[in-house]
Amino acid sequence: MADKAAKRAKFEAAWDRIRQELVSGIADEGMPKDAIDWFGKNLDYNVPGGKLNRGLSVVDTAEILKGSTLDDDEYYKAAILGWGVELLQAFFLVSDDIMDSSITRRGQPCYYRAPGIGMIAINDSFMLEGAIYYLLKKHFRSTPYYVDLLELFHDTTYQTEMGQLIDLITAPEDHVDLDKFSLKKHSLIVIYKTAYYSFYLPVALAMYMNGVPQSYTLEGKTVEPYKAALSILIPLGEYFQIQDDFLDFSAPPEVLGKIGTDILDNKCSWVINTALAVVTPDQRAVLDANYGRKDSAAEARVKEVFEAVGIRERYAKYEAEVYEKLNGLIAAIPEGPERGTIKREIFTSFLEKIYKRSK
Amino acid sequence: MADKAAKRAKFEAAWDRIRQELVSGIADEGMPKDAIDWFGKNLDYNVPGGKLNRGLSVVDTAEILKGSTLDDDEYYKAAILGWGVELLQAFFLVSDDIMDSSITRRGQPCYYRAPGIGMIAINDSFMLEGAIYYLLKKHFRSTPYYVDLLELFHDTTYQTEMGQLIDLITAPEDHVDLDKFSLKKHSLIVIYKTAYYSFYLPVALAMYMNGVPQSYTLEGKTVEPYKAALSILIPLGEYFQIQDDFLDFSAPPEVLGKIGTDILDNKCSWVINTALAVVTPDQRAVLDANYGRKDSAAEARVKEVFEAVGIRERYAKYEAEVYEKLNGLIAAIPEGPERGTIKREIFTSFLEKIYKRSK
Repeated sequence: MADKAAKRAKFEAAWDRIRQELVSGIADEGMPKDAIDWFGKNLDYNVPGGKLNRGLSVVDTAEILKGSTLDDDEYYKAAILGWGVELLQAFFLVSDDIMDSSITRRGQPCYYRAPGIGMIAINDSFMLEGAIYYLLKKHFRSTPYYVDLLELFHDTTYQTEMGQLIDLITAPEDHVDLDKFSLKKHSLIVIYKTAYYSFYLPVALAMYMNGVPQSYTLEGKTVEPYKAALSILIPLGEYFQIQDDFLDFSAPPEVLGKIGTDILDNKCSWVINTALAVVTPDQRAVLDANYGRKDSAAEARVKEVFEAVGIRERYAKYEAEVYEKLNGLIAAIPEGPERGTIKREIFTSFLEKIYKRSK
Repeated sequence: MADKAAKRAKFEAAWDRIRQELVSGIADEGMPKDAIDWFGKNLDYNVPGGKLNRGLSVVDTAEILKGSTLDDDEYYKAAILGWGVELLQAFFLVSDDIMDSSITRRGQPCYYRAPGIGMIAINDSFMLEGAIYYLLKKHFRSTPYYVDLLELFHDTTYQTEMGQLIDLITAPEDHVDLDKFSLKKHSLIVIYKTAYYSFYLPVALAMYMNGVPQSYTLEGKTVEPYKAALSILIPLGEYFQIQDDFLDFSAPPEVLGKIGTDILDNKCSWVINTALAVVTPDQRAVLDANYGRKDSAAEARVKEVFEAVGIRERYAKYEAEVYEKLNGLIAAIPEGPERGTIKREIFTSFLEKIYKRSK
């Protein structure tokens, strides 16, 4: 725990330096003082206040791949990539909150609802994305993997936008149509909207930074390490989100730290989709009449159906199966002490953080 | 004129192919049919309906640099870069219209006001930007100038966002404060928000495509062609926007094709900034009381002050001076028949299209 807090503090200290570079960057362009100050506030409000899991996992993965402590230069490079992931997430969250008409985020008003911001938040979100490429150009331009980093950020951004599009047109908050839902649709949304940027992106960034090539041979087997990482991290990200969906329904608010609102908000969650696949016509009618209504009595009727179809047992079964499957995939990766190869620990460290979490 | 229409038709035909590639690209990712259709409509609504000057200038510049007609492959490559500029512009316009609460664009409702769209337009604007990098990766990955293209798009995007930020905080539609205005601020907004992406970007893209290096020697002089292009195209873009601002005030609506609303909309225009620099205290009081009010009597009082300070003569003087200055800069570029060098015609063709235009 102290270790975790120290890791976070070190990562946050790197942010102070990165923030300064970003603000200086637009000052050097000759921007007026009010614009420089505005950009600094945009960064402060939106980038550093989250759990930082995504950013920290770049640093953690880089260390696992190296097999020893990162030196100062390596740490700062990994931290820039990690904060790049956090900047990407901030770009998405600022804009998602506008699209979803959300009220609060991380215990404060959503950025667009902060005094004097409003729709300027849209351009501010763009600048959070733009900041990523400013940092990559400044720090990685002369590395042999610069183009790989650029393409990885591009591809992941586009994938996340595709996921957001499917989510927005499948589950608009103001129009409930459960016919649009399915476990297949849920899987697609989760993989595109969350898994690529939250799980694959941080690991692949660290792999590029450590010089992991597109393929190598180990124990007589040809490994395509980026494909191998993807084949584990996408189902792992899906598992993480399914767990998130299940906790929204099942976890006591005092443990979860918030009150679940997926049913009220017409969310295309694993819970509703699993129920839809097995309900009787009568139960389906209850869901159609009550899902996505801003009404706690309606919510309670939906929850009754979820309990009646045995959601808790279904989730427990899913979790046991996916855990076994992921462990199998991880064990199948050839591993040795060679530099520039992937290690099982990258994946097990994610899996153990997630498995049976309660919040 | 027939030549111009034919050029446009050829460029639009390339769009049909590019649009198909983009739609296939997200279909190949396994997106559901409703998302593929949605993306197609996003492209159709927002990308092809403008004047296409920016996109066409990539193709024109590529042809001038080559010194002969582009072959089919060269044309398609230049057209992709040209449509990349149009996609970038579409990304900005879709989001600017939301930030400005605009009503119409290109004779139809702004995209976010089209039926069923709303704030989903924000994510759709992101996908227009994402489409640029999809196309660059697909078509330019194996070229030696791929990274240059990526960095040019990144840098220009960030610069345009900075310009939009200064504009948004300097001239919010709902809060008039002429103390925030100045010709210096106007110049900064115009250069960052418009000149980089509209003038420098298309030319620099065509230069990279034609293998123009970072520097070369001609007539015994060292030329840094990208810096030379920037030093001409930025003041040229500024001239273009100043003219736009002046026409908004001065051009008869039947010639301009629209009714100017800069005074009503509290725009940080060249006209108000030029007036502010020379008004008497009494005239300033009239501007403070009447600029940016949604009221045609107030607008008329502002226009009286503009006439009283001799805006028309001041504009004529500015135009004559900038025309002479730009011609001087263009004439100073060493020019020869060598491949991979810049030609004066790139810049004169822009200048002659702009000089003394009436709409």
